[in-house]
Amino acid sequence: MTSQEKILKKNDEGKFICVGLDTDINKIPAFLKNDPTGVFKFNQSIIEATQEYAAAYKINFAFYERAGAKGISELEKTVELIPRDILTIADAKRGDIGNTSEMYAKSVYDHFKFDAVTLHPYMGKDSLQPFLEFTDKMNYVLVLTSNAGANDFEKLELKDGSFLYQNILLKVKEWNEKQNCGIVFGATKLDELKSNINIFGNLSVLLPGVGAQGGSLEDISKTFKDKNRKNYLVNVSRGIIYKSSGEDFAEAARNEIITLNKITSGNLN
Amino acid sequence: MTSQEKILKKNDEGKFICVGLDTDINKIPAFLKNDPTGVFKFNQSIIEATQEYAAAYKINFAFYERAGAKGISELEKTVELIPRDILTIADAKRGDIGNTSEMYAKSVYDHFKFDAVTLHPYMGKDSLQPFLEFTDKMNYVLVLTSNAGANDFEKLELKDGSFLYQNILLKVKEWNEKQNCGIVFGATKLDELKSNINIFGNLSVLLPGVGAQGGSLEDISKTFKDKNRKNYLVNVSRGIIYKSSGEDFAEAARNEIITLNKITSGNLN
Repeated sequence: MTSQEKILKKNDEGKFICVGLDTDINKIPAFLKNDPTGVFKFNQSIIEATQEYAAAYKINFAFYERAGAKGISELEKTVELIPRDILTIADAKRGDIGNTSEMYAKSVYDHFKFDAVTLHPYMGKDSLQPFLEFTDKMNYVLVLTSNAGANDFEKLELKDGSFLYQNILLKVKEWNEKQNCGIVFGATKLDELKSNINIFGNLSVLLPGVGAQGGSLEDISKTFKDKNRKNYLVNVSRGIIYKSSGEDFAEAARNEIITLNKITSGNLN
Repeated sequence: MTSQEKILKKNDEGKFICVGLDTDINKIPAFLKNDPTGVFKFNQSIIEATQEYAAAYKINFAFYERAGAKGISELEKTVELIPRDILTIADAKRGDIGNTSEMYAKSVYDHFKFDAVTLHPYMGKDSLQPFLEFTDKMNYVLVLTSNAGANDFEKLELKDGSFLYQNILLKVKEWNEKQNCGIVFGATKLDELKSNINIFGNLSVLLPGVGAQGGSLEDISKTFKDKNRKNYLVNVSRGIIYKSSGEDFAEAARNEIITLNKITSGNLN
């Protein structure tokens, strides 16, 4: 099954939520903090509790690399826990010159065995080409991000009157011959989502920024539903995995994703 | 000693070459390939042979992450080998939303104990702020990269007639209040270097792309010398560490950096 097919299958089951495993040793429940494998055990409990409801899992490399080789080892073991029919996203924001990107692509896809990755567009197509060679994977290129700093460069106006992020969006569409490209589009940017969704074409869309960052899941879901458009994932990290700081964190995470699934399906009440 | 001071001190000693440790298990000499600590031993020999002549060492994360936790462990041990008066650069191309960049900054500076990092500007100032908080470090922001793909987005013309990379250059200058900002400027982009060097201000400059990528060390050195401008480093990776594929690789690397130092000092003949 290609990554695209995994996404579409979950979407058809009414699942659009990507669980973000931004697991911070300082934020996990007290009884796990002093356990040397606490981060792994936390992830294991979250994955077991949510896998029936999740459309995807996104692993944020920063939170593992922070602990060096030990953290990367926990990342490796976490990926192995995720059922193979659920999309795994390496949130690593890669992008470098060709021979280096080739190493990163092999790292993400061959070593860690992820299904998808997030990519920085700044250095241009040849910097992403090694990822695009993996035609059964999903390569999410940053287009418009969820943070305030998106205004600094992403929304710079070009000579032709369009914004930089729109130029990148159109280029990623050109690169999508093998249906292995997607875009990252901030869930906090509803106006821009509405005014650009018609030009997304067949691109898969990953929307971070719901919850702690302020994006509205209801508004995002409605926007896609109004266009009768699937092939998207809404990431929620802190809002799910830290829903409870007690021993019931996994149960609380499950209850939260069940609630979020009701919102995306329009059946909350 | 701050990172800026480390760079200037080496420059004053006539040293401008940054040795890039892009150590690829498939390219190291045959007798090390089957050694489980081959990459580390290779780096150890290169560092011992070149430390007297090097202005800095740049470690390319991709080549270590490719082997997962084992590779990151070799990276950790490699950083420890480098004398503390020589700048160490984490070539990791970071850039993410605030709480994630905070983790990456702690990873690079607190965990791995690097002196400098390379950063992607696309997501704007708040995505780099956690790195800027480290006022004694050096944060190299990508401005104009050495690859052909630099033409795709970096050289897009903005509404005001400038190029995107120039807009970023000017912003990084604004962020440089603590003398902890630098720029990455491709050594393959000589014309753009000449036409922009006058607006670099006090920014430290990291120039990759000499050697395998086609940039000319002579031309780069002359351009800076003509402006009586120091505070820069020219990275050479493959051209030094793979100068010989035999057992004499470390000696060959030393001889090569001695030759390169003669070029930057204008004393080749």
